[in-house]
Amino acid sequence: MPRSHQRRPALIHVATADLDVLDVLHALSDPTRMIITRTLYDDPERACGTFPVEVAPSTLSHHFRVLREAGVIHQREEGNRRLTTLRRADLDERFPGLLDAIVSAYDRRSGEGG
Amino acid sequence: MPRSHQRRPALIHVATADLDVLDVLHALSDPTRMIITRTLYDDPERACGTFPVEVAPSTLSHHFRVLREAGVIHQREEGNRRLTTLRRADLDERFPGLLDAIVSAYDRRSGEGG
Repeated sequence: MPRSHQRRPALIHVATADLDVLDVLHALSDPTRMIITRTLYDDPERACGTFPVEVAPSTLSHHFRVLREAGVIHQREEGNRRLTTLRRADLDERFPGLLDAIVSAYDRRSGEGG
Repeated sequence: MPRSHQRRPALIHVATADLDVLDVLHALSDPTRMIITRTLYDDPERACGTFPVEVAPSTLSHHFRVLREAGVIHQREEGNRRLTTLRRADLDERFPGLLDAIVSAYDRRSGEGG
């Protein structure tokens, strides 16, 4: 295996059956992580640098890891890019209505300029 | 005012219009706070010492404060007791379906012994 492929640790994803609602709530309780999630709710797949957040790369990596470990997002490598998707079907299967209710609540808040 | 009435600071409650969904998600992302919330979801009003949690009194006070400041619970003094209620109507008004979806997700988790 070429050396360049060994630099990044493998991306771990939690199984749908093992999703924990407290981990999901924690992941979504942060403003940056909510913006990432809200962006993916509308957009099927995005490269890591394309989210409308202004944080340092290391901070962004941390937020992606929290979201990934909670099972909110899925990430895969494609060449030099890391592509992120929302695990919407998995979340809906495990916790019906939860993601929609949270995004809807967040949109009401944003709509009021809060 | 008698001295005994001055010992405790006044209980501050956030207005329904000012409830922040990220604060609510953060408040509910902790196992002890979720047990408190889940208990109140079934029970209209409870005294502080009667929740099925095993934590030190100071820790419990901290958890109540986080829940109160997020607008999840309301507390009032009655004699020597502090009585706690869930702000279900306020939460439902501000974030329709959110509390039910979270409790439902939590119950699925608990039901599976997770």
